[in-house]
Amino acid sequence: MEREIIELFMKYLKKQGDLPLGDDAGALRIGDEWLVATNDMLVGKTDVPDIMTPEQVGFKAVTMNVSDIAAMGARPIGFLFSLGVPRGFDGLYLEGVAKGIGNALEFYEIPVLSADTNEADDLIIDGIALGRTRHLLTRSGAKPGDLVCITGDIGRPLAGLLVWKNDLDVSLSTKEILYEKLLEPRARVKEGIKIGNYANAAIDISDGLAKELHLVAEMSGVRIEVDASKLPIMEEVFEVAELLRRDPLEIALASGEEFELVFTIPPKYTEELSFDFTVIGTVHKGAGVFITTEEKRMEVPPIGWEHLDSR
Amino acid sequence: MEREIIELFMKYLKKQGDLPLGDDAGALRIGDEWLVATNDMLVGKTDVPDIMTPEQVGFKAVTMNVSDIAAMGARPIGFLFSLGVPRGFDGLYLEGVAKGIGNALEFYEIPVLSADTNEADDLIIDGIALGRTRHLLTRSGAKPGDLVCITGDIGRPLAGLLVWKNDLDVSLSTKEILYEKLLEPRARVKEGIKIGNYANAAIDISDGLAKELHLVAEMSGVRIEVDASKLPIMEEVFEVAELLRRDPLEIALASGEEFELVFTIPPKYTEELSFDFTVIGTVHKGAGVFITTEEKRMEVPPIGWEHLDSR
Repeated sequence: MEREIIELFMKYLKKQGDLPLGDDAGALRIGDEWLVATNDMLVGKTDVPDIMTPEQVGFKAVTMNVSDIAAMGARPIGFLFSLGVPRGFDGLYLEGVAKGIGNALEFYEIPVLSADTNEADDLIIDGIALGRTRHLLTRSGAKPGDLVCITGDIGRPLAGLLVWKNDLDVSLSTKEILYEKLLEPRARVKEGIKIGNYANAAIDISDGLAKELHLVAEMSGVRIEVDASKLPIMEEVFEVAELLRRDPLEIALASGEEFELVFTIPPKYTEELSFDFTVIGTVHKGAGVFITTEEKRMEVPPIGWEHLDSR
Repeated sequence: MEREIIELFMKYLKKQGDLPLGDDAGALRIGDEWLVATNDMLVGKTDVPDIMTPEQVGFKAVTMNVSDIAAMGARPIGFLFSLGVPRGFDGLYLEGVAKGIGNALEFYEIPVLSADTNEADDLIIDGIALGRTRHLLTRSGAKPGDLVCITGDIGRPLAGLLVWKNDLDVSLSTKEILYEKLLEPRARVKEGIKIGNYANAAIDISDGLAKELHLVAEMSGVRIEVDASKLPIMEEVFEVAELLRRDPLEIALASGEEFELVFTIPPKYTEELSFDFTVIGTVHKGAGVFITTEEKRMEVPPIGWEHLDSR
């Protein structure tokens, strides 16, 4: 449904910013800098798994927006939010959400600029983040010869969700490691600012690595080759895959809301990056996203979170 | 409820912008300018009277945010929005909303920077507007000696709502004049930019003139005296008041979502203003908001839209 609605609106939204819609955030030139702005609505019923505490919900509402700012290579400078609150909603829960938002703003060191609250049928948190940068990173700048890199590791949010939904019998430590990323993901702010100076393209993992790579390949007009053996997947993800007799690679590629940054960068610049990252592939002329495992090379299907989730 | 929720959140939101929360919009210094940002959520069930067309709903979602930017003396530079759409929602209605948003962006000459859509239980449009200015106007800058001025006229939205709710038998022309302001209010963008250079304080009329004047008096630490005979009230508002045996003054003071600007300005600067406005009162040392009619001088109760609406 989302796709159709967006297309319907695009027909009528002729005036866009200095960057066409379709990136992690919109952007406007202000002097010799870019002002970057993004918004993301969190709806209680559909976006919040029951195991999340209200503090985690509030924190995540900030993280998901700050992550989009980071993916543009920008420094977050402010946050705004609108709340929809059902009549008679649990005050303690709301207080938890407030705490979570407050903690996140301190964590990311950004001020709140504006807040609005309304009565609604479901709990709704619409978060908005603003950022600034001199060097704008987009999804469309990947160039043949670039390395494809990623921060952190992938797969834990979906593996954690699978543990929870299937009530899997895993050790406490496995559960904790998976749930940490599922429930308390953090945006890669410092990394985003840093790569803004060196990378050619970037995107954050909201809908799964497979989908994000397809977006970069399509919007940049390039082909991406991924080396499966290089993907940073923790052993706890393999453990869950084995218990469910699923392909761990599929879990890693489909896992969303990781908020890791995927970026493409000329090889010579990788030594300028002062943080941990993993080179997972290369950018080439052509189209499509391909992955090579020990057995074969195949096209990566643009699978997402909801794909595995609903099986 | 709104007040309690806001207070609850304020406890946890220690990091605020370069202007404390409590104005029409938040603000951040960028170089020698201010970046102004505001958001306002529109919920179908509670905020949209049935007589509004979807085009009018979409237009208004932009207007209410642009008006807050104008009240800060800023030029609007961008709009963002998040949509909550119930499953199976009427596509034609949505298309109307899209058209309305698109028309408003053309009318106000601002680009859309980002859009998000989600499934929700009710139609929700959370609009966000950004603006820039060199001279920030706040609610707290009114000074003794200032004149209190207002753009346009007041009272028509509430009078129109009363016609509709009570199914009043008024002429077609009266209905049209009242409904125009109720259904198609416009933000005072040019006026806002202009007064940014001369006024000491400004606010837009969202919740009724009475409430807005109280906010300015309180936040500026001044007393405001209003001359009832000066209030710009159209005869159609008097007509409705008479039919309902209500005080037209009360309707004018309580009528919300006018999106007119109220501003206080040193008398010598009024001749610099190249648009129509009405001087309705004066600013003095002290506290409170008072109004003088032919019969008496009395304190203005901080009545709002919902006050008359629910009687």
